[in-house]
Amino acid sequence: MARVFNFNPGPATLPEPVLEQAQREFMEWPGAGMSVMEMSHRGKEFISIAEKTEQTLRELLSIPTEYKVLFLQGGATTQFAAVPMNLLDGRAGADYVDTGHWSKKAIAEAGRYCAVNVAASSEADGYHRVPPQAEWETRTDAAYLHYTPNETIGGVEFHWVPESSEVPLVADMSSNILSAPVDVSRFGIIYAGAQKNIGISGITLVILREDLLGKAADITPTPLNYAVQVKSDSMINTPPTFAWYMAGLTFEWIKERGGVDAIAQSNKRKAEHLYQTIDGSAFYSNPVEPESRSRMNVPFVLDDPALDPTFLSEAADAGLVGLKGHRAIGGMRASIYNAMSEDGIDALVDFMQNFEQRHG
Amino acid sequence: MARVFNFNPGPATLPEPVLEQAQREFMEWPGAGMSVMEMSHRGKEFISIAEKTEQTLRELLSIPTEYKVLFLQGGATTQFAAVPMNLLDGRAGADYVDTGHWSKKAIAEAGRYCAVNVAASSEADGYHRVPPQAEWETRTDAAYLHYTPNETIGGVEFHWVPESSEVPLVADMSSNILSAPVDVSRFGIIYAGAQKNIGISGITLVILREDLLGKAADITPTPLNYAVQVKSDSMINTPPTFAWYMAGLTFEWIKERGGVDAIAQSNKRKAEHLYQTIDGSAFYSNPVEPESRSRMNVPFVLDDPALDPTFLSEAADAGLVGLKGHRAIGGMRASIYNAMSEDGIDALVDFMQNFEQRHG
Repeated sequence: MARVFNFNPGPATLPEPVLEQAQREFMEWPGAGMSVMEMSHRGKEFISIAEKTEQTLRELLSIPTEYKVLFLQGGATTQFAAVPMNLLDGRAGADYVDTGHWSKKAIAEAGRYCAVNVAASSEADGYHRVPPQAEWETRTDAAYLHYTPNETIGGVEFHWVPESSEVPLVADMSSNILSAPVDVSRFGIIYAGAQKNIGISGITLVILREDLLGKAADITPTPLNYAVQVKSDSMINTPPTFAWYMAGLTFEWIKERGGVDAIAQSNKRKAEHLYQTIDGSAFYSNPVEPESRSRMNVPFVLDDPALDPTFLSEAADAGLVGLKGHRAIGGMRASIYNAMSEDGIDALVDFMQNFEQRHG
Repeated sequence: MARVFNFNPGPATLPEPVLEQAQREFMEWPGAGMSVMEMSHRGKEFISIAEKTEQTLRELLSIPTEYKVLFLQGGATTQFAAVPMNLLDGRAGADYVDTGHWSKKAIAEAGRYCAVNVAASSEADGYHRVPPQAEWETRTDAAYLHYTPNETIGGVEFHWVPESSEVPLVADMSSNILSAPVDVSRFGIIYAGAQKNIGISGITLVILREDLLGKAADITPTPLNYAVQVKSDSMINTPPTFAWYMAGLTFEWIKERGGVDAIAQSNKRKAEHLYQTIDGSAFYSNPVEPESRSRMNVPFVLDDPALDPTFLSEAADAGLVGLKGHRAIGGMRASIYNAMSEDGIDALVDFMQNFEQRHG
């Protein structure tokens, strides 16, 4: 069969040129006589790949020099523990903003290490909006302020960066990093699992301001200790080398497409096209307030949920897969990260309109 | 250039049929319309890959039903912390056997969580032997007894399984798992990073007896909690799907070659050929006592260390790479895991003998 349009929420579709290059180099990385996967992580070939990957990322996000970049294991879920372990530094608690499923996961894990103050929550609104900062009850003595810029299940996204004054701002950007420009200097820590906009699962990006280093609690497992990992260039043990290489290829692909600004324009067009289709129909709907809608994950429900299986089955026949919504929400969800092409959105919109004509 | 013979200690050479199959399926896993890397880890295609991978491993090692199998992230180094976190269960300490570099790393990390009793150490012997169990000072109230069946840097390997009575035996088998049959029922926990005999870096195998579950300390990060991971089939968050798939292909390759028994026979021939070459020469030497020599990592030194750079450079010209010894030992090291062919050993031996004739 041919390659389909894949709307999975993560692991997600990858850029075809990235896959093609990795496939070409799969048995022998140019000049090495072996696959990337077979190289020593401490050899000059892999070190050159690792360094170039970091350098390209630094260019894409204009990461200031006082920020360190780590490539770790364990996903964002491991960072849910690593952040309090590294940042509490004897303080009693931290502030968290709750905008949905992933915020709640981060809060639950942090609650095992400190007193969590939920500074704001949109739970009472069904997680259909980002709470404006005027409503937040933050504390000046918090160890940090944590939020989730994009919620993949609810389809809710911050299109602004919170003010956090002297308190370090920490963001789980797993699902929207590199989708639009961001001012890294506003953050203490940005972390992100790779399987949406960075590459393949199994590697976790952490960007952190260097003054936050060196304060880890005694209980911190060594691989989760940021200062130790910084000192060893993310190699206190064998890193996930192939995932690191795939991240590098993806960063190069973004750069070749014109960088994060160009990607952001494309993402805006893709999301607007889909939301306009939904809003212009009496058959499909999305409950999120317009200014809080995600450009990465677009949940929508059919007017008649009994048609859901037919929608999914006909979509699959049309080469559109991964559209089933999360069980917590039901309905459909189109995850449209950087690697989803505008052609893919066009195909989805055509299918949705055709389906509505036949079943609406 | 052609593919070389790669003696790297890990990441290490992979079986060519595994690489070839993964390359063929790289853009589209059969029938899925997408790469394995782009599949949802909760979709039926990936679940079938994950389950088959576990099933093949269970066959290869005859894993008893009361043992659970986990595929985690973080490498063996993360397990150095996870083991005490999960097993101490309020007890004050654990027993560790020190046979070299990796034992010492495990001991240092465990020492952050409990009182470590070093039950035996071969440090005074330069780590040139495995201390016989008659010399060990184990404790009946230890939470567990930990050892390192193969030390990659010293080239020292246990060819027997310690007795641990009622105390759970825990083994870091990163560098010799699947290289020879092992009676899993003798162990409480076996763990192993993948990048030597399992597949590519970025995934960590944990095999554990189910009665050891459910005792994790409160401070354990959720992804490191064995009971939680067992309950969610190693998917409390997105697992490293491609590394999991590569492990499955490698397990199939072992099975097709006749299983672990056949692999063990080949490994024995490979190691004997190399040690005989070293012992039969006045030019090369290995300091490890014969009954403790590793079948996976063969360190050797040249009579004249001034020739080391010439040896490495001429070896590389002959297509033999990754032979430089660890800086702690110097000299050379040939890592000859399952995927190193007997042809590769023959080529190395030919080169060594030829080099000795010209420089000895």
